[in-house]
Amino acid sequence: MARIVQKYGGSSVADADSIKRVARRVARTRSEGHEVIIVISAMGDTTDELMDLALQVSPRPKSRELDMLLTTGERQSAALLAMALSDLGVDAVSYTGSQAGVLTTPIHGNARIIDITPGRVEAAVQEGNVAIVAGFQGVAQSTKDVTTLGRGASDTTAVALAAALGADHCEIYSDVDGVFTADPRIVPAAQPITEISYEEMMEMAASGAKILHLRCVEYARRENVKVHVRSSFTDKPGTWVKALEEVQKGPNMEEAIITGVAHDRGEAKITIAGVPDRVGEAALIFTTIAEHDINIDMIVQNISRLSDVKTDISFTLPMTEGGRAIEALESIKDQVGFDELLYDDQIGKVSIVGVGMRSHPGVTATFFRALAGQDVNLQMISTSEIRISVVVGSDDVDDAVRAAHSAFGLDAEEEAVVHAGTGR
Amino acid sequence: MARIVQKYGGSSVADADSIKRVARRVARTRSEGHEVIIVISAMGDTTDELMDLALQVSPRPKSRELDMLLTTGERQSAALLAMALSDLGVDAVSYTGSQAGVLTTPIHGNARIIDITPGRVEAAVQEGNVAIVAGFQGVAQSTKDVTTLGRGASDTTAVALAAALGADHCEIYSDVDGVFTADPRIVPAAQPITEISYEEMMEMAASGAKILHLRCVEYARRENVKVHVRSSFTDKPGTWVKALEEVQKGPNMEEAIITGVAHDRGEAKITIAGVPDRVGEAALIFTTIAEHDINIDMIVQNISRLSDVKTDISFTLPMTEGGRAIEALESIKDQVGFDELLYDDQIGKVSIVGVGMRSHPGVTATFFRALAGQDVNLQMISTSEIRISVVVGSDDVDDAVRAAHSAFGLDAEEEAVVHAGTGR
Repeated sequence: MARIVQKYGGSSVADADSIKRVARRVARTRSEGHEVIIVISAMGDTTDELMDLALQVSPRPKSRELDMLLTTGERQSAALLAMALSDLGVDAVSYTGSQAGVLTTPIHGNARIIDITPGRVEAAVQEGNVAIVAGFQGVAQSTKDVTTLGRGASDTTAVALAAALGADHCEIYSDVDGVFTADPRIVPAAQPITEISYEEMMEMAASGAKILHLRCVEYARRENVKVHVRSSFTDKPGTWVKALEEVQKGPNMEEAIITGVAHDRGEAKITIAGVPDRVGEAALIFTTIAEHDINIDMIVQNISRLSDVKTDISFTLPMTEGGRAIEALESIKDQVGFDELLYDDQIGKVSIVGVGMRSHPGVTATFFRALAGQDVNLQMISTSEIRISVVVGSDDVDDAVRAAHSAFGLDAEEEAVVHAGTGR
Repeated sequence: MARIVQKYGGSSVADADSIKRVARRVARTRSEGHEVIIVISAMGDTTDELMDLALQVSPRPKSRELDMLLTTGERQSAALLAMALSDLGVDAVSYTGSQAGVLTTPIHGNARIIDITPGRVEAAVQEGNVAIVAGFQGVAQSTKDVTTLGRGASDTTAVALAAALGADHCEIYSDVDGVFTADPRIVPAAQPITEISYEEMMEMAASGAKILHLRCVEYARRENVKVHVRSSFTDKPGTWVKALEEVQKGPNMEEAIITGVAHDRGEAKITIAGVPDRVGEAALIFTTIAEHDINIDMIVQNISRLSDVKTDISFTLPMTEGGRAIEALESIKDQVGFDELLYDDQIGKVSIVGVGMRSHPGVTATFFRALAGQDVNLQMISTSEIRISVVVGSDDVDDAVRAAHSAFGLDAEEEAVVHAGTGR
């Protein structure tokens, strides 16, 4: 008998039939004798619809009230799943984030979990119930107000709850079959990854793999929670995310130097041209950006121009924050004295990730040779110990991903059959 | 400066525009310098839609989970109204029933308020906020689970909150202009009632007047909370419900013996024919009914039949509970030894209500004469100190209401203009 936390995403509970299907899966796990705790997202597009309603009422809805509004979505799906389970003869009780003891910071819309005190959940499970917790939400320890953890953070709730309840592992269900060596929509020969280390999964998530949120993987690594990424529509084996020393490479993976190729089309590049090459200019620029709560990704400072003592600074950031960043930079133009701002959202980031590259020299050379073979021009380069990322033109992303995937021997003999899922 | 609790029903907040309209009304009250606390229902048909969803998932949804599900409706409208108010520059904070300290019994779907501990609401109001409380819901004192107070019980939340907060009065907004001497859809000459006593309003509510819930008026009387029933679509004066000694009759009402005529088409009649005339048979029958949680209204036991020692017992009950009552009675048929059960839902109840009848003999005679003049046959009769009710065939209800209204001089010179409301 194991204690298992299962998280179901919005696409898995899009309508009444989907909820009943999830209930059957939960009932099956329960009937195998396991203790089961469920974390659930809002049904399908509920969160988007509530957001639309808020914007109809107020162009800039107050964040405290937005959290009150949006958290109702998960409460509804949690209650509905409990009903569906009861109908199958499985005792089930639903809890709001607050009732489940998810204590957070008071930052509405982007709160962080401080602690979980799952007394009621623990008691319910010990009494033989399936406990269902509304994901994405908590209660601010200081103000007692309802908070949300940011979009998609139900994964983090699940992992944090698994840690707090001492669960054997945490299963994250969505409409994809697990983590692949590359996006199968771009690389038909991509292979499912059976096991991957926390570190590699973090780099994959930070590089654009949408399957798990970065914060969730960070949490899992810190608390050493084994995460099993699976589809709620199939019984395929999925992907285990665990400590590096426990990772078993799949049969085809023994020789693999890199674990996967990730890409991200959601970033834009800003170039600040003609920045005076004085001490403190870069500090002023990035302090301003930080003060506007804008997350930046890669930064490159080019060499000074031959003609004078000016440099160009480029950085990438989420496309959605581009407008605010330009505004913020315009406001310090006179103070910094740069020449102009260039904004480019026709870019994409392609990354190769793998702990193997630590012990294999020449990975960078192989990667860049593969890209050159496809005439892909590199605009920016950034590396970590187990990742190499390049920024390329958005038209070059698919070619770059495919070339890298082939160059590192990741192509499968047969093409992967990807389950398309329903409800999205 | 007064402290005012305002309650807005579902028809007043049916969509984003309605919510903005309510926000303007609240803002106006606030700008007059009053402290304002709002109790709000779910938007339009939200509760019905959520109930449909529950039934799609489970034919008999668990009541605890149904409460978790249904309470999200009021939380949404509360948050949306807070956003709309903020947009008008009015500080506003929304609270769930639980956050507002609405402590209840643990009976899911039909909980009763035990106590209100409105510490957070009081603090918010003292800080200059409009406090918005989700109606219809609370938290069970014993289990800490979310409860609902039964359909339409937001009125009760409002009155209970007004009592707990020491408010000057409680305004109940809906899509009708107040309480009328009869339903204006049946009696075009019905007049608005400016002021009415708690006792009369309770009898009107119990007799089918839908405008206020019985429990709400009971609560208001017990806590001596003045209730102002108004339309959120007009600025008409509405109806004040208050202690009898404070009631001022309107100019046309000075001579009125009765205050209003109410009717109810929602009841059915069950006759248990041929009950052996033994001690304890009636007790057994109504104990069984009570054990099935069925509320009954009028009871009549006819004289024993000449032929033998059997009697007929008839009673009325909400039509929706008819099936369960028949089932319950069939189960004790052999024990009681009655001949047969007769079920009739083609009935209606017509009641005249007024404290004036205490001091005016002949009210019953006038009432019955008026009914006889319309050839209305009386099936059952029941009286209280300030009310006389008769059960008639459903086809006779309209005629009976009009005849009684005329006979007691309640007809206005001009026909009432009834605001039809929107959103229903």
